[in-house]
Amino acid sequence: MAETTEQASDIVEAWLKQEDAIDPHKAPRLQELLDKVPLQDLIAVVERQNAIRAALALRLLPRQKSIAVFDALDAKHQADIIDELGNSDVYEFFDELDPEDRVALLDELPAEIADRLLRSLTQSKRDVTGVVLGYDKGSVGRRMSPEVPVIHPEMSVRDALYKLRETAHELETIYTVPITREDRRLVGVVSLREIFTADAALTMADIMQEPVFAQAGDDAEETARWFLPLDMLALPVVDESHRLVGLLTWDDATDIVEEEDSEDSARAGGTEALQQPYLSTPLLKLVRSRIVWLLVLAVSALLTVQVLDSFEGTLAKAVVLSLFIPLLTGTGGNTGNQAATTVTRALALGDVRTRDLLAVMWRELRVGMLLGAVLGLAGLALATLVYGLSIGLVIGSTLFLICSISATVGGLMPIVAKTIGADPAVFSNPFISTFCDATGLIIYFLIAKTVLGI
Amino acid sequence: MAETTEQASDIVEAWLKQEDAIDPHKAPRLQELLDKVPLQDLIAVVERQNAIRAALALRLLPRQKSIAVFDALDAKHQADIIDELGNSDVYEFFDELDPEDRVALLDELPAEIADRLLRSLTQSKRDVTGVVLGYDKGSVGRRMSPEVPVIHPEMSVRDALYKLRETAHELETIYTVPITREDRRLVGVVSLREIFTADAALTMADIMQEPVFAQAGDDAEETARWFLPLDMLALPVVDESHRLVGLLTWDDATDIVEEEDSEDSARAGGTEALQQPYLSTPLLKLVRSRIVWLLVLAVSALLTVQVLDSFEGTLAKAVVLSLFIPLLTGTGGNTGNQAATTVTRALALGDVRTRDLLAVMWRELRVGMLLGAVLGLAGLALATLVYGLSIGLVIGSTLFLICSISATVGGLMPIVAKTIGADPAVFSNPFISTFCDATGLIIYFLIAKTVLGI
Repeated sequence: MAETTEQASDIVEAWLKQEDAIDPHKAPRLQELLDKVPLQDLIAVVERQNAIRAALALRLLPRQKSIAVFDALDAKHQADIIDELGNSDVYEFFDELDPEDRVALLDELPAEIADRLLRSLTQSKRDVTGVVLGYDKGSVGRRMSPEVPVIHPEMSVRDALYKLRETAHELETIYTVPITREDRRLVGVVSLREIFTADAALTMADIMQEPVFAQAGDDAEETARWFLPLDMLALPVVDESHRLVGLLTWDDATDIVEEEDSEDSARAGGTEALQQPYLSTPLLKLVRSRIVWLLVLAVSALLTVQVLDSFEGTLAKAVVLSLFIPLLTGTGGNTGNQAATTVTRALALGDVRTRDLLAVMWRELRVGMLLGAVLGLAGLALATLVYGLSIGLVIGSTLFLICSISATVGGLMPIVAKTIGADPAVFSNPFISTFCDATGLIIYFLIAKTVLGI
Repeated sequence: MAETTEQASDIVEAWLKQEDAIDPHKAPRLQELLDKVPLQDLIAVVERQNAIRAALALRLLPRQKSIAVFDALDAKHQADIIDELGNSDVYEFFDELDPEDRVALLDELPAEIADRLLRSLTQSKRDVTGVVLGYDKGSVGRRMSPEVPVIHPEMSVRDALYKLRETAHELETIYTVPITREDRRLVGVVSLREIFTADAALTMADIMQEPVFAQAGDDAEETARWFLPLDMLALPVVDESHRLVGLLTWDDATDIVEEEDSEDSARAGGTEALQQPYLSTPLLKLVRSRIVWLLVLAVSALLTVQVLDSFEGTLAKAVVLSLFIPLLTGTGGNTGNQAATTVTRALALGDVRTRDLLAVMWRELRVGMLLGAVLGLAGLALATLVYGLSIGLVIGSTLFLICSISATVGGLMPIVAKTIGADPAVFSNPFISTFCDATGLIIYFLIAKTVLGI
């Protein structure tokens, strides 16, 4: 039949959704359709399926394609699917992964299954996987490819090209070529492009450049963030004695940054990152990713009940004050969030460091005062119009103070979090809202008591 | 003197901060220090400077290094710096950029300067730049590299290698080789690695693969998002007649995704992305990136004042009700934000499409009810303990309803936004908070009036 690739992709998806086990009569037709779907759409379709259906699709795909699709999934999703696949499929998929992706998958699996999978590898593959497993989670070593070419500075362009050609099948990348001495110390780096276009009589020492490199123990996110803007294809990774132990490829660096951004944006919204496509995440997992945060925030919001309780007398005398509570706390929360979002992002990108604490506070205080002046004047005018001058004065000055304090605290929090080793995104938005709510209310009632004389 | 590279980087930064124009006597010493700082740190240091100091650092650096640093900056920052550089520097930097980066910079410059810069290019460079300029902003065509190799399917491995070697200097990448017919139609793609390791007698037709490709008019963000997980180095870009017009390289695709993520995370926090390092952003620009949002949100928060005003009678009769206002609106806002954050991210990653609207609503309704059940029971118990059963019932049932509605609306909003062509991140967090505040208060007082009989 003559479907376009898009139709084929939709039909396949609809089909997969209908049934969890496929009728054997229909399998050939589904296979025919699957064959029409381009690789990138296949990945998107499989990503949206739960583990059972994803495994079904993988089994129906031709070998090369199913390996490519499996390879492109998150480690978390891979781990879920593995339960649903036959052993021979599992071993083959596992075998085809790059060592660092293999380690990422092992991290997601129960120890017993991880063990069995490791044992299914050939000795040499187990060895390279072991190198990566030896580094801490979150370190560059854990994410690097341990398969590196051995090219020495005295080698000629001709010899280097020959050697790269012969060993290419064992290497994840041949486009970035680290140059090492006999003792494996890194002395330079040269791109395949440079070797390829250089005069055949030159040596590596002639054309290699000062290596940009990372230590295996360095933080993976920080390294990926400074490495990616350099637009290099791979970054040599060395141990403490400056010996080459691996290469961090651009695609693994991109994955690291993407994961961290997902996590940051999730946490800024008060939830944990799903690490799995939304529609294929079980309902209870969604609840679990949110309930802890929600409870923590609700408990800390009890603080606002306390604050209001202690001002109940004032409230009873001037009920009109309660009308502005959501407006004032909301504005404080928004101002604090804006500052925290900006500073969190700047920290992640390395534009701000923890030692810039005072500079950031000073900037945010001034920004907050300017914002507060604008909002305060608007609040003064509007509230005076409707509720009279004294209420107008209370609202106006409260807005000014709330904006100044919220911006300063909002800018401060991510840096404090980073200094004490917590995730800046965790500390940021939801917590700041709660904090700004409580402080804002105290300011509000203190000003109200003074101005209204109650 | 014998500074470590880190010290050198710190000294340089401190020095740059002190003065905007450098004392000519000190320039040699600063140059010596700059020479010790590795490229990635140089980029980080220059990124943190304002335009005047960044230009100063660029002028002091050796040519090759300053070009590399300039190249790595955002187009926005480049545009700011250009004002501070001498003409000859500007022309040289501009000349060295890749065509697509040149276009990104042109977009940030006043028309007059853009024109002058374009005229400074050689005819052939102006032509390739013109190709990119011909496509819409936000399209793949605008971000692709228009310099492509011309390799035909009947060419042997030996001939292809020879041709790539000869033309490498004109190409941005030689690692992904699109194969085209005489009429420039794209028929396959092969990596340099495959050509390099193949038998010299084979032809391109023997080793090439089905090309994965994009249309020049496709949306740049969507394309970058599906392309990056494929871990390919470059994506062929074709026009409507399937003729090859360029290559989207992985590093440009990474830039696109990073920009969008920055924008999304900024907007989720109720601010506009700075597109410039935080510490080098002028204070008033920070205020401007926030004030509009803050005012819009404050004006929409007037809705809550309205709602409370209309329930003032109820409030006056039971002042205790006002104590829970921030807790209830806060919880509603948090639940809504969680849902919106998750769905916004899923939309960006392509895990959820607009047609999944009903599936998402149904999921979020159930998640919201589960969350509401937990929080509602906790609220019922606590409030009953302190304020008695009737208040407990009001708080408990309000929490349940608020969570259910907020999660549903929070999940719905980003999809609605995308459907009507707005940015999901804009519609999400801050707006949802305000919406949840108002609805939450109405629910609260309706329940309170019923249960308390006032």
